[in-house]
Amino acid sequence: MNQSTELLLAATTAAQRGGDILMRYLRDGVEMRAKSHEGAKTYDLVSDADIESENAIAKHLHSKYPTHHLLGEENLHAEADSDNLWIIDPLDGTNNFAHGVLHFGVSIAYYCKGTPIVAAVFNPARDEMYTAIAGGGAFLNGRAIEVSRDGKLSQSLIGCGFYYDRGEMMKKTLAAIESFFAEDIHGIRRFGTASLDLCQVASGQFGGFFEYQLSPWDFAAGALILTEAGGKITTARGDELPIEKTSVLASNGLLHDAMLTITKAHHP
Amino acid sequence: MNQSTELLLAATTAAQRGGDILMRYLRDGVEMRAKSHEGAKTYDLVSDADIESENAIAKHLHSKYPTHHLLGEENLHAEADSDNLWIIDPLDGTNNFAHGVLHFGVSIAYYCKGTPIVAAVFNPARDEMYTAIAGGGAFLNGRAIEVSRDGKLSQSLIGCGFYYDRGEMMKKTLAAIESFFAEDIHGIRRFGTASLDLCQVASGQFGGFFEYQLSPWDFAAGALILTEAGGKITTARGDELPIEKTSVLASNGLLHDAMLTITKAHHP
Repeated sequence: MNQSTELLLAATTAAQRGGDILMRYLRDGVEMRAKSHEGAKTYDLVSDADIESENAIAKHLHSKYPTHHLLGEENLHAEADSDNLWIIDPLDGTNNFAHGVLHFGVSIAYYCKGTPIVAAVFNPARDEMYTAIAGGGAFLNGRAIEVSRDGKLSQSLIGCGFYYDRGEMMKKTLAAIESFFAEDIHGIRRFGTASLDLCQVASGQFGGFFEYQLSPWDFAAGALILTEAGGKITTARGDELPIEKTSVLASNGLLHDAMLTITKAHHP
Repeated sequence: MNQSTELLLAATTAAQRGGDILMRYLRDGVEMRAKSHEGAKTYDLVSDADIESENAIAKHLHSKYPTHHLLGEENLHAEADSDNLWIIDPLDGTNNFAHGVLHFGVSIAYYCKGTPIVAAVFNPARDEMYTAIAGGGAFLNGRAIEVSRDGKLSQSLIGCGFYYDRGEMMKKTLAAIESFFAEDIHGIRRFGTASLDLCQVASGQFGGFFEYQLSPWDFAAGALILTEAGGKITTARGDELPIEKTSVLASNGLLHDAMLTITKAHHP
């Protein structure tokens, strides 16, 4: 087994450990929610699930690679330009998870000085594991995936996201959606989990996806899976994607310029 | 077996026959699409799938109930106020289906003089069968479901739809979404399959759902499943739902008035 394959195995195993914890909380949480009738209670559960998933992932990665660095949503604060860096979202799609929508994920990527090497995005509720190794293609449950070949917005579904912003950024997102509709797209989709949105572009479901603010753990793994599937990812202004809070534009490549015209025009 | 149970069995069997056909086309279609690289080709396949699914459903229902009437999206034109009326969508979520998004459905309802008696909505890609018998509750794969108990928009996910309109109705929908965000909802969702959206309200995932134009085959089955799960459905102006093209507002009941204030204000 070469080094990249070993790293990917560590990523998928860690993602499955995290996913198992999320599924346990989903079952218990949904029951408790129905019993308690308290929104607040549900949110406590969700937060516990997030942290316990992150702990399990960190434990597995540390056991395999004791000297590596971890950057994640909850309690992992390594520098983004470290070598041997794992970028982790232990529960992407928190709101879906909290409401029992079976579309959430665990996202794990390994970067070396800013360059992605391996990635895994796992939806435990659907048992769908997306993976990629730099230079080795992208896969869904071991089957090669590729982006769509649609060259026109009018042949495509476009995914979008609103992150947590409810102000100016939300308004700009709605304005961009209106501009996409003016290009006669097949439809807009809002599924609520950025890491999986990127995988839906990678597997040819969406022609593209944009969101005006995301964190590195939301896109670090999906970005490699997408580019290995033949797609392109930049900021929504067309710049190289930094490993920090940023806007994101992902596409099958063919649609990138057409999408960029819209996302740039409305960029907050 | 009483009459309603027999009717439901006919509905679920027909939905499964239709679903089997869709899954065959999905496998073949996705392969042909990758080979042909022609959007148009894909759409021919989708249309064939739609018609073949409807034919299989009609055949099964006619074999069980030769005198009954059928109303459906493709070639079934019975009057909406008939007795013994089956209202059928052989493929709801055509755009998802065409792009390989595993979120589409077969929707079958039995109405008598405008009153819903049994309903089935089936997502064959996820093997999820939602069912209801009037007065008998709502179920997902045989397990009882119920709407959420969230009484505030700020505790809820809200589903929406754009139908095929790309003009005024789209703009009003975006304006309504902006108003929902102003109520600090957890998030907006656009999954792209109205019959399943209604089931997602019925099973407590979404607090509510609205769309400014739908056809009877989009909501006939979902409406019964929702009300049997404890929810409420009206037009987006708050009127009783007619069995014709109409706007739709669906909710867990508790959120209905708060949602209605918004959907009514922006109604096209």
